[in-house]
Amino acid sequence: MAKVKVGVAGYGVIGQRLADGVALQKDMELVGVADLVPSLSVRALHEKGMPYDLYLVSGADKSKFDALGIPISGTFEDLVGKVDLMLDSSPGGVGAKNKELYKAKGVKAVFQGGEKNSVADVFFHGYANYEKGVGADYLKLTSCNTTGLIRAVDCLDRTCGGLKKIAITIIRRVADPGDYHRGLTNALQIDKAPSHQAVDLMTIMPHVEATGILVHTPVTHGHIITVVATGKQKITKDKAQAAFKQHPRIRVVRLEDGFLGNASFFRYARDLGNPRGDMYEIGLWEDSIVESGDDIMFAINIPQESVTIPETVDAIRAAMKMQTTRETGTAETNKYLDMKVR
Amino acid sequence: MAKVKVGVAGYGVIGQRLADGVALQKDMELVGVADLVPSLSVRALHEKGMPYDLYLVSGADKSKFDALGIPISGTFEDLVGKVDLMLDSSPGGVGAKNKELYKAKGVKAVFQGGEKNSVADVFFHGYANYEKGVGADYLKLTSCNTTGLIRAVDCLDRTCGGLKKIAITIIRRVADPGDYHRGLTNALQIDKAPSHQAVDLMTIMPHVEATGILVHTPVTHGHIITVVATGKQKITKDKAQAAFKQHPRIRVVRLEDGFLGNASFFRYARDLGNPRGDMYEIGLWEDSIVESGDDIMFAINIPQESVTIPETVDAIRAAMKMQTTRETGTAETNKYLDMKVR
Amino acid sequence: MAKVKVGVAGYGVIGQRLADGVALQKDMELVGVADLVPSLSVRALHEKGMPYDLYLVSGADKSKFDALGIPISGTFEDLVGKVDLMLDSSPGGVGAKNKELYKAKGVKAVFQGGEKNSVADVFFHGYANYEKGVGADYLKLTSCNTTGLIRAVDCLDRTCGGLKKIAITIIRRVADPGDYHRGLTNALQIDKAPSHQAVDLMTIMPHVEATGILVHTPVTHGHIITVVATGKQKITKDKAQAAFKQHPRIRVVRLEDGFLGNASFFRYARDLGNPRGDMYEIGLWEDSIVESGDDIMFAINIPQESVTIPETVDAIRAAMKMQTTRETGTAETNKYLDMKVR
Amino acid sequence: MAKVKVGVAGYGVIGQRLADGVALQKDMELVGVADLVPSLSVRALHEKGMPYDLYLVSGADKSKFDALGIPISGTFEDLVGKVDLMLDSSPGGVGAKNKELYKAKGVKAVFQGGEKNSVADVFFHGYANYEKGVGADYLKLTSCNTTGLIRAVDCLDRTCGGLKKIAITIIRRVADPGDYHRGLTNALQIDKAPSHQAVDLMTIMPHVEATGILVHTPVTHGHIITVVATGKQKITKDKAQAAFKQHPRIRVVRLEDGFLGNASFFRYARDLGNPRGDMYEIGLWEDSIVESGDDIMFAINIPQESVTIPETVDAIRAAMKMQTTRETGTAETNKYLDMKVR
Repeated sequence: MAKVKVGVAGYGVIGQRLADGVALQKDMELVGVADLVPSLSVRALHEKGMPYDLYLVSGADKSKFDALGIPISGTFEDLVGKVDLMLDSSPGGVGAKNKELYKAKGVKAVFQGGEKNSVADVFFHGYANYEKGVGADYLKLTSCNTTGLIRAVDCLDRTCGGLKKIAITIIRRVADPGDYHRGLTNALQIDKAPSHQAVDLMTIMPHVEATGILVHTPVTHGHIITVVATGKQKITKDKAQAAFKQHPRIRVVRLEDGFLGNASFFRYARDLGNPRGDMYEIGLWEDSIVESGDDIMFAINIPQESVTIPETVDAIRAAMKMQTTRETGTAETNKYLDMKVR
Repeated sequence: MAKVKVGVAGYGVIGQRLADGVALQKDMELVGVADLVPSLSVRALHEKGMPYDLYLVSGADKSKFDALGIPISGTFEDLVGKVDLMLDSSPGGVGAKNKELYKAKGVKAVFQGGEKNSVADVFFHGYANYEKGVGADYLKLTSCNTTGLIRAVDCLDRTCGGLKKIAITIIRRVADPGDYHRGLTNALQIDKAPSHQAVDLMTIMPHVEATGILVHTPVTHGHIITVVATGKQKITKDKAQAAFKQHPRIRVVRLEDGFLGNASFFRYARDLGNPRGDMYEIGLWEDSIVESGDDIMFAINIPQESVTIPETVDAIRAAMKMQTTRETGTAETNKYLDMKVR
Repeated sequence: MAKVKVGVAGYGVIGQRLADGVALQKDMELVGVADLVPSLSVRALHEKGMPYDLYLVSGADKSKFDALGIPISGTFEDLVGKVDLMLDSSPGGVGAKNKELYKAKGVKAVFQGGEKNSVADVFFHGYANYEKGVGADYLKLTSCNTTGLIRAVDCLDRTCGGLKKIAITIIRRVADPGDYHRGLTNALQIDKAPSHQAVDLMTIMPHVEATGILVHTPVTHGHIITVVATGKQKITKDKAQAAFKQHPRIRVVRLEDGFLGNASFFRYARDLGNPRGDMYEIGLWEDSIVESGDDIMFAINIPQESVTIPETVDAIRAAMKMQTTRETGTAETNKYLDMKVR
Repeated sequence: MAKVKVGVAGYGVIGQRLADGVALQKDMELVGVADLVPSLSVRALHEKGMPYDLYLVSGADKSKFDALGIPISGTFEDLVGKVDLMLDSSPGGVGAKNKELYKAKGVKAVFQGGEKNSVADVFFHGYANYEKGVGADYLKLTSCNTTGLIRAVDCLDRTCGGLKKIAITIIRRVADPGDYHRGLTNALQIDKAPSHQAVDLMTIMPHVEATGILVHTPVTHGHIITVVATGKQKITKDKAQAAFKQHPRIRVVRLEDGFLGNASFFRYARDLGNPRGDMYEIGLWEDSIVESGDDIMFAINIPQESVTIPETVDAIRAAMKMQTTRETGTAETNKYLDMKVR
């Protein structure tokens, strides 16, 4: 069977991880990536020998790339012309403009969280609503926090008799490592409630009522979310813990083993030798799970730079009808990304 | 009526604020403060002209104070001999030893959160269990987070038909401004759940079930706590907001007015000209209050350095039977600390 | 003798400190302050009972102030019409526009560091070039780092036989406490060399060659600057230390006394009871002074929010010819601000 | 020719990077690594399939490793018995005890910066004093800051006519990513001057006079050092820049290319796909180089986790007489680590 051909628009924090994720799928071919300027990420691509072909989006100044000896494989139009589907991780708003080209060329696309929901036919999460994405032309992924949150919430919902509602507290990392365009210094910052992540979860999982408060914190490695979940029936700590441990995209850890916080996950992923210290799994602390009357409460860790990659790959599988069920689609993604119950 | 005579053991972050708080009470006399070494706080006391008399605890090297020209008014025993009640903000564990002296001298004492509960007859909070402290000899105050949390929870409990349970997320500031002996850098750190603050709350308010998760964050100005509260009956946003606004020790604020996070409160208290930028009130964001099914969720700000001062003054009033009801005791404290509905 | 009448434009971080500084001068009268919106600082002014009259600058929406019950004493034009001199701490660029009004009304002005040098006739520092400001109409103060740096450099220059050159490293705090509009998270950021502070110093002290590198750090309390100074003759550690100790605007401290870094100064100023924890003096670590061949090296601490207040008051004295020599002008300022050799 | 057999004691932050560095040398064989507990790094080694054999140091509880299914290849004694040379990155002080075993077994060793200088015969830096290490039995590497600093200083010293003195300001990252046992929050901390790095440099390069001040900052990615260097003759910016660009272990970068600070280097190394985001080169900002009279000033970036690896590999080459000159030894290390003029 012919491999599905995929391109990536925007080779930044997310784009380069999307490219790597697709390149690992044996039934897909990464045709190339596109960007505007010779950013540090593009320079690094060059220094490591151009494992991916680079195309230039409209407005790029090719002479800047030439001056650095960075080979260019063509224009953005050229790239779109060669692929079955585009992963669009352009800066917010640009994806909507790119969509015109995708439509003109008859190419499907998966947009990242920065775009408005209206850019897509389906607001997608591989585990929660895979079937809605099957055959769709334009999908939008949930944002990093929402993607990770839904993994845990969907897991409880499916294994513990159904959920009624959740109340979340998002302790958000405010910038990525290396970000100089945003930051917070010695301050916690609160957003107007409810947080958009709670609202977005209800769009994907309309049978669960959700609300939440988001607090920005001056750190760069991983969001932490606490969840208070109300089941249709009582969910015990044992039951929840067993469910989480069986999920291939959730890594259940313990404080006593050294997983003391978000920075421990980053260190562990670096020590694993994962490129850039990326981690696809969310973390979940066994020691954080507590019962609150009939409710259950727990804390998860969201590696913001890489957490959406698996669900984005799921989206390709759904859109291209490579697999048509949640179980088969996510299983194939997990196989190539080495995500499994450990 | 003779003023109640009060001494303070330990002139550190808490001790100097206790001294100031007592000094503001027109029906109390601050006899003096005691410490061990010429710390920065003690040097500052000297530089501003010794508004409080200084006594030396056992083990202090008087020659160090003499070398700096800091006048000493006597020993710790001397101080204890002159007072009706000691506020003990010694380092953890020292208070328990000091208690022997207090007993020998027939002096009452109020201990801060660092001591074990067993040091005291009553674990005390001015608003939640004032009456338990009336006439008691040894009281222990709740810690800063618990003190502030109980203010809000007790407020809802009394005005909104009673609470059944709460689930809290404590986003804890990890150090005070000027601390060099502890700190956290670019990391969130999680504690084993449930947090002690939830457990402590149940000791004070045994009719409310409580649990929670605590996450340390690398900031110095103010803890933020999110609370998910379940009432015996439905608590609406309007009802909760109205209740909070009527509480003299809760300052309800809005994001749009510039209260963006914990650092805004610190800045505001500095701009008010409050000594050290202290604030006695907890903050509560109007924009954070959301309904979660029948539950209510909101976020509060805890100024960790000064929040326990009012309830500690309440404890003096209760222990000395200056006022024998919650309403009269806290009202008197509030009057002298200028805490009121604004 | 009639008091000199002063107004302040811009009641923000600097403006409120300028107002306080002027209010302490017994030979000056603070007529009022002006601002645009009911910021937290303005709300705090109101909550503490309007110690200063408030005027509204052009474009302000008076109804917003009315809604909060904040009394308004008039327009910016009204204020300018009542004073001899304006201290302009408006946002960068606004001062240049205000100058038109000052000129029309025949009012002198002292601008803060955010304005371009061209706004003023004299780029001013109370200790380094007081005489240049005598009788001048428009003066601009050096920025916080430059003001503090010049204190130390001018001190050495005058007492140790003259300086030839300096090379500085500025370890800059990136935001003030309470700032949410700028910040840096887990990153050091370097600026193009030479730093503007070195260049500015040469404008004020043209006989000293200066260069330097500036690195932004994610902290809020105080810049630290290291200085490598080359004298016309050898400057020993003893000589430098003795000179610094005699300067009323330099506070020489020791690590062993607890002054471990910039946060110690902030804590100490808070413990002193200084409003907002302000400190007018720069700090200088005795333990940092080292000889480097014939050069001398040392580190200073710059309390960025308040350090320019004394030199700004000096500027009023110079401009208004209240005192016509450096010695008499700075001495009078020091007297009212309680700055002295300790 | 038989490969030189190397073992690593201590599989922590430095140890795992030493193991990787040795494994890349085609003329060396990494026999195994030793540790005490199943730390996160050891668990990661296991999860990635035990690329290196693990030995247990004295006091280790083998049952803990067994419980996790981590295979153990023998005792520390076994490891030492199989190698020609040990790289000792044990916690400070343990290396000195290990040395007894090394001596008994006739095995050479290279210790990391945490040990006292007296543990070794030679205090070593590959570029500055390679020849002193040739044939030596026990060498100690300079610390991360000193190693990186000497690269730049030795480079100038050799290419620009000799150096007379340097004055450095070390802006130190206070913890590594993932560290929870140390940290600093919203504070700069100053050490007693002169910094040990300046003193250590003089031990390695006794013909250069050095002093300096160290300031700890609350960040985790890379120290920044500013250097003011005095040559025997005038060193121009052009000359210095050209010299730095020719050094295979110095990466000269520009602000305008996106290298804005220490976090940019970390991001770039991650984007390069370097394991853990490690970088062997120090960074040097072209835009930071300024002339200060006859002196030259510049800023460098030190990737603290990995910077000592090349010089440690050099130390193996020197100790084992694999190459007997600085030029040949460092060239061989550079070849295998892909360090070159770019």
